[in-house]
Amino acid sequence: MIARQEIELRGTSETDVADVTKRVAQLVEKSGVQEGLCVVFVPGSTAAVTTIEYEPGVVEDLKRAIEKLAPRGERYAHDSAWGDGNGYAHVRAAMVGPSLAVPIAEGHLVLGTWQQLVVLDFDSRPRRRRVVVQISGES
Amino acid sequence: MIARQEIELRGTSETDVADVTKRVAQLVEKSGVQEGLCVVFVPGSTAAVTTIEYEPGVVEDLKRAIEKLAPRGERYAHDSAWGDGNGYAHVRAAMVGPSLAVPIAEGHLVLGTWQQLVVLDFDSRPRRRRVVVQISGES
Amino acid sequence: MIARQEIELRGTSETDVADVTKRVAQLVEKSGVQEGLCVVFVPGSTAAVTTIEYEPGVVEDLKRAIEKLAPRGERYAHDSAWGDGNGYAHVRAAMVGPSLAVPIAEGHLVLGTWQQLVVLDFDSRPRRRRVVVQISGES
Repeated sequence: MIARQEIELRGTSETDVADVTKRVAQLVEKSGVQEGLCVVFVPGSTAAVTTIEYEPGVVEDLKRAIEKLAPRGERYAHDSAWGDGNGYAHVRAAMVGPSLAVPIAEGHLVLGTWQQLVVLDFDSRPRRRRVVVQISGES
Repeated sequence: MIARQEIELRGTSETDVADVTKRVAQLVEKSGVQEGLCVVFVPGSTAAVTTIEYEPGVVEDLKRAIEKLAPRGERYAHDSAWGDGNGYAHVRAAMVGPSLAVPIAEGHLVLGTWQQLVVLDFDSRPRRRRVVVQISGES
Repeated sequence: MIARQEIELRGTSETDVADVTKRVAQLVEKSGVQEGLCVVFVPGSTAAVTTIEYEPGVVEDLKRAIEKLAPRGERYAHDSAWGDGNGYAHVRAAMVGPSLAVPIAEGHLVLGTWQQLVVLDFDSRPRRRRVVVQISGES
């Protein structure tokens, strides 16, 4: 079976790190899938998905490393051409990636105890985000 | 059902960014899959897959960030041992990653409007690339 | 069909790069799946999965690039709060990512000849790691 749901996030501006673990876990539970796959995908080119230990220290550390990777203060060709002011967000999103595939085992995501699913919204202005959660497998 | 196709690319040298969205979307349409998963995988250790807004500014910005991550001018142990001259390409490919999983919803990839599927070829010489597109799900 | 197995690794400390290609390939072969998907996922927030040409030069080059991305010597908020001393490992793992989806074609992973599946253990102390290998598809 294949089930697809969407989660909606209201991002704040500049590398907002949202923990979506609970909401995704609830969708897995409701699906009844025991062995299968959960794909988390964020449509849009200024956001990304990964896992972290979701505590304020790691969140701060990750933001700093990402700022170094594609600093906001630099000149971006995207901004020169389009005036969007979010060229750095596009680069960050492409480097981290928009998709994550997590196996489901015995009805649960195989995440570590201190490993949370996070959506990183890099955009320069607050915006709504929809996140696609697709669950497939055997119930 | 599971269908597998290959796309062939003729890369130019040094971080060639190829937009494969249309070709992948056509394969999804031809497969008839309505709800499912599309996995794009690039065999080889000097190329990668991600999504970007495919416009010249973002392409230039991404190339610059990747150049900073693993600059071509540095000394690479791979080059010292093998003389390939593409040590930087190996590092870049490993960091971005060779695989992307995109859900299919109502017969279409759930990409954002300004989000394109791209294959990044980091190698130092022009070469042919095959990209594996695997589509599974329910029609 | 869906099969799930685990591989156990005994990591050494600091960016241990383990080639798991053979063990994953054996699981694919044993599963009998001809066309399908193999998802490799590492539970935990200080390890990651990607592909490289597994030879000492590339391993050294990749380690150096990752050290630059999140240097061990910097101050990490995670360490200040928790005293774990592995803040850099959390950042590295989040950037590379814990999951990889590799298509299976005609009974084999579609990896390139010089492309190996590797688990990167970034943690500061030696530890056991389990890696989840999920294989689905048609036999």
